[in-house]
Order: sequence, then C-alpha cells, then structure tokens
Amino acid sequence: MANLGEFEFIAQLLQGPAAEGQPFYRHPLALGIGDDAALIPPLGPQEQLAVASDMLIEGRHYLADCDPRSLGHKVLAVNLSDLAAMGARPLAFTLSAGLREIRRPWIESFLDGMLSLARESQCPLVGGDTTAVGAQASEVFSVTVLGVVRVGTALRRDGLQPGDDLWVSGHLGDAAFALNQGIDDSKLNAPQPRLVLGLGLVGLASAAIDISDGLQSELMHLLNAAQRRAAQPQCLQANVNWQELPLGPLIRQAALAGRLTPSQAAGLAITGGDEYELLFAAAPRERARIEALGPQLGLALTRIGSVEFSDTPGVRWRDAAEAQPPESLQDMITRGGFRHF
Amino acid sequence: MANLGEFEFIAQLLQGPAAEGQPFYRHPLALGIGDDAALIPPLGPQEQLAVASDMLIEGRHYLADCDPRSLGHKVLAVNLSDLAAMGARPLAFTLSAGLREIRRPWIESFLDGMLSLARESQCPLVGGDTTAVGAQASEVFSVTVLGVVRVGTALRRDGLQPGDDLWVSGHLGDAAFALNQGIDDSKLNAPQPRLVLGLGLVGLASAAIDISDGLQSELMHLLNAAQRRAAQPQCLQANVNWQELPLGPLIRQAALAGRLTPSQAAGLAITGGDEYELLFAAAPRERARIEALGPQLGLALTRIGSVEFSDTPGVRWRDAAEAQPPESLQDMITRGGFRHF
Repeated sequence: MANLGEFEFIAQLLQGPAAEGQPFYRHPLALGIGDDAALIPPLGPQEQLAVASDMLIEGRHYLADCDPRSLGHKVLAVNLSDLAAMGARPLAFTLSAGLREIRRPWIESFLDGMLSLARESQCPLVGGDTTAVGAQASEVFSVTVLGVVRVGTALRRDGLQPGDDLWVSGHLGDAAFALNQGIDDSKLNAPQPRLVLGLGLVGLASAAIDISDGLQSELMHLLNAAQRRAAQPQCLQANVNWQELPLGPLIRQAALAGRLTPSQAAGLAITGGDEYELLFAAAPRERARIEALGPQLGLALTRIGSVEFSDTPGVRWRDAAEAQPPESLQDMITRGGFRHF
Repeated sequence: MANLGEFEFIAQLLQGPAAEGQPFYRHPLALGIGDDAALIPPLGPQEQLAVASDMLIEGRHYLADCDPRSLGHKVLAVNLSDLAAMGARPLAFTLSAGLREIRRPWIESFLDGMLSLARESQCPLVGGDTTAVGAQASEVFSVTVLGVVRVGTALRRDGLQPGDDLWVSGHLGDAAFALNQGIDDSKLNAPQPRLVLGLGLVGLASAAIDISDGLQSELMHLLNAAQRRAAQPQCLQANVNWQELPLGPLIRQAALAGRLTPSQAAGLAITGGDEYELLFAAAPRERARIEALGPQLGLALTRIGSVEFSDTPGVRWRDAAEAQPPESLQDMITRGGFRHF
C-alpha cells in the first residue's frame, strides 16, 4: 500500500511541470494546486463557461499494461474533445486519480503525456485529488475540464436544422481497427482533440458533437437532441452515403489488400468509437467557408450527407444510387458501435 | 454486468430531479446534462471562479453497505466544504461515477441525498459521466464543484499573519469517535458544509481551510502555506490550548461517563478527520465581528489560539498554565490524524 509520503511526491511533481510554460500561473488572480480550491482569473464580459467530465477506468477504457504516456495524453484528450465539440477554448482542468501504488517512472510518463497536451492546449492543471485504492482494485482517472465560449455561440447538439449538411473531420475507422488488431496507431494512442476546428466552426456550424462512441451513435444523439428541442414533434432523418465516408489509412490499406471488404471498412467507420473527430451540421450556404477551413487547418473536412424531414426518422445509410447498404453492413450497424457495457 | 439501457435510466433520473427547483436551469444561457459540455451563465464582472475536486472510493472512504442517501449527501458535501473554505458561493457541480451495477433503489436514494443538498446549496448538477466497473472492482464517485468569489476576496490558505487569532466552527471529535465506535452520527453521515460561514468570513478572515484530515494536520497546512508565500523564511507557530477545544456532544458525554479520558477526548478533536468544520485565522481587531457572526448563523465559533513568530515552528499544544499536554495526548498527536493511506 502506498503511503502518504509517496503521494506527496505527486504534489511536488505537479507544482513544477504542471505550472511550466502556462501563462495562467502568472496571472495575479490565479491560484493553482495546493489550496482548498483553485481560482480561475475572471472571464471576459461576453464569455461563459463550458464544463465537461470524463472518467477512465482500468480494464474498461484502457489496459493495465498500456503505455502511460499515451494514457496520460488520452485522459486529457477525451475531455478536451468535448470542449472542441462545444466550440470552446480550454481554460483549465482538474485530475482525480485512484492509484494502487506509486510507480514513479510510470507516474512521470503519465504526467508527461498529460501535461504536454495541457501545454499545447493552454489548459493548465489546477487541482484534483489523489487517493490510494486497494491492491486488487482498478485504477481510475477522472478529469473535469473547463472552457470558455463567447456568450450564446456554443456549438450545442440541439441546433441541427432540416436541410443542414452533415460533415466529419479527419478520417474514421482506424482507431477501432487498430484496437481490434492490436496495432499501435496514433489515432488510438494519441487522439488530437479538434480544438482549433471547434473554434473555427463557431458561427458556421449549427450543431456539433465529438465522435467518441461511433458515427452512427453520434448521429442519433444529434437527431434526438434536435427533436427534444423542437416545440412540435418533428421527424428528422440523417441521409448519409456510406461509400463516401473518409476512411482512415489503416482500413483503406486493409481494404485494398483484401483483408477487409468494403462493407467491413465502412462498418468500422460507422460504428467505431474512440475517434475524437467532430461530426457537425451546417447550412448549405456555409459550404464554401467550411471547405476553405480544412486546408487552413490541414485537416480533411468531408461532407457526408444531409438532414431532412422524413416519416422514417433516424439515420438512412445509402449509396450514390440511393440503394440500401448490403446486409452485412446493415448487420454491423444494427449490432451497434462501441459500447462501454 | 450492467448494460447501456440501465445507465440511461440514470440520465433520465438526472434530467428530472436534478433540474427541479434550480433557478440555474431557467437561465437562457445555461445548459445542463446531455451535451458534450454544460454551459454556465456568465459570472458578474467582479467575480471569479473557484474549482475543487474530490474522489470517494468504496472500501477507502466509505463501506459498501453504507446508507446510499448519506453517501450521496457526503460525496457532494466534502466538495462544497472546499468552496466554504474559500469563501465561495456554489455555482454548479459535475459527478462521475464508476458503478458495478445499477441497483435502482440504491441509485435513487444516493441521488436523493446528493440532490437534496444540491438544492439547499443552490448548486445544480450539470454534467458528468457514468461508467461500469468490473464485478470485483471498487465503486468510485468523483465530484468537481464550481463556485464564485468576488475578485481578490477568496479565503486562501496562505493569508495567515503573525498575531492572528485561530478559530474553529462547530465542534470537533465526534465524527472520528462515531466511526471508531460504529455509532450513527449526523456529523459523520451528513456533514454540513459551512458555506454561509465561509461567505460571512470574506473580509474578516485572513486564511481558512476545512477540517477534512484533522485539526493538527490542517493547522500545519495553514502554517506551511504562509511560510511558502512569505518572501523571507519566517518561523510561524500556532499556539493552541487543547483544554479549550470545542468538543462534540458524543465525546463530551463519553468523557463525563469516564469512557474517554480528557486526553483521549482532546486527541479525537485534534486528530479526527471528516469534520468539515472551518479552521480560520483573523486579526484580533475582528474578534467582536466574528463573535457576533456565530449567533447569527446558529453556529459556535471558538477562538482556540493564536499565531506567533517562533524559533520552533509548528503547532504548540498547551494548557491554560502554558504546560505541555500529557504524554498520552502527545503520543496521539504524533501518531497523526486520519490518514487516507
């Protein structure tokens, strides 16, 4: 069992590297780790706060023998991805950890991965809690991230409008394939939260969500949120061409080599989780501005379909000839994307 | 293993009772549970944010068979207590939970305890994360609480000044005694975060901390924070009369009945954790105003000692005759207060 002294090592570690290179800590009204609560410098008059929390549990979201640097990165990245999906700029985060024991090199690598991303994202670690768990217990990391948006401009899930185009950033399917095949892949190990894209979409996109559970599942979240918000019941359908999804290089290559059928590759892109790309909706009049945004950010932005009123709400997967997908793909979609449970 | 549908039950439960009676949710710029991030209405121009996180782990901070209502209360209360110690007004909180399974009556009681306190404290639940843990794993709850303070008025730990009086709210020792004796006690099961006191101390107290790990330990935190902040090394000593500590009714009664020696009773008050009272420092000129505050709040506020320059920094426990405490009490203090590890 770890003792208190060993946990103090973490506190010391944090007060050094966590503060490094973060202008936050030079603000006279900021207060970081070490008091009852952290203090955040005042926001601007036209700014409001966005808050998201995600918990990662050993054996459920990651394996005990995973690379600690990559885990540290990911624990923060999945939270920053939520801010990206709101169009929010990161402000600060807290980390609570339940650990079986203090393995110093492991912790140092974990924090190195986490704090590198924190510095890149200008999102300082300002507080949290470290607790020992029993020798047989799972380790657990819980992050809460705070961000800032201009008042009234956040990219909410429920802003979807009939007639909107549907877009995704980057490419899909590689994270699920890498996990399934035991391949080391940067998409899986070091997902890049699409923060700059999220900020760029403010004023352009009508709704956005990050793809953590799979494209099919996130499309349903957008449709359901819009339907809940509507004053009258409205049946919205997402109409998406499965043959034009932006497939990741791993699955594109596997499909070319005949190791995946086109349906299997599309199925991974549609149901695979852990993507941390953005799915967003925008009016057709914004197409040119969105198409210009991609090259600016060095990030593919692909129009995958549109939203329509329909008697059959939900996602309609089709090909260019408006035909239904093959049965094997329909099965894969019905079985569902990544599930936590 | 719980399935996703069962976890959706929690989401439904939260969207009803969590929102009830919380003016927060009626603010047009607020967004609660259900999007990538929650949105907090803008703060006032002279306000800044306070953030604290605490994690409670089954088998470490509470027992599997504890009362779920009391647990729900406590998970939020320990976080609100951190805000109280900063002089902050609660704003909102997030809850992340790792659960083995969904026992509906258990979850309902847990949320009832948590959300009752949330409503009393005007601190709505705005987001979080629910995850299944393995069948053998410990359950875990992680809360992050957000609060508001007027710019520059937060009660920081490091504000302690030589010459300050030291004060504690309420009474001490009962929580540790109840835990040790297996007694049901409201102090242990339903600690009341001292939010109103914290707000009342803004402008009066020079420093404050909440007593979660025990009075001795928190006194050392205040002294160390002041010493770290000082431009030049200064040796500060807390000088405290152990015979005049406000003992809880349980241990006072036990001492009267001869089941505890005076030293043992004082030892519990000095080392016992889970108090969630405030320890604070204030200049002697504030005595009258602080003494008036107690009756206003219906809460005992006891002056327990003072802070002085000294060649021997740390806490000096003494009696009215300036004598050292008996050896049995000194031993108890040396062995330390409540430790997580």
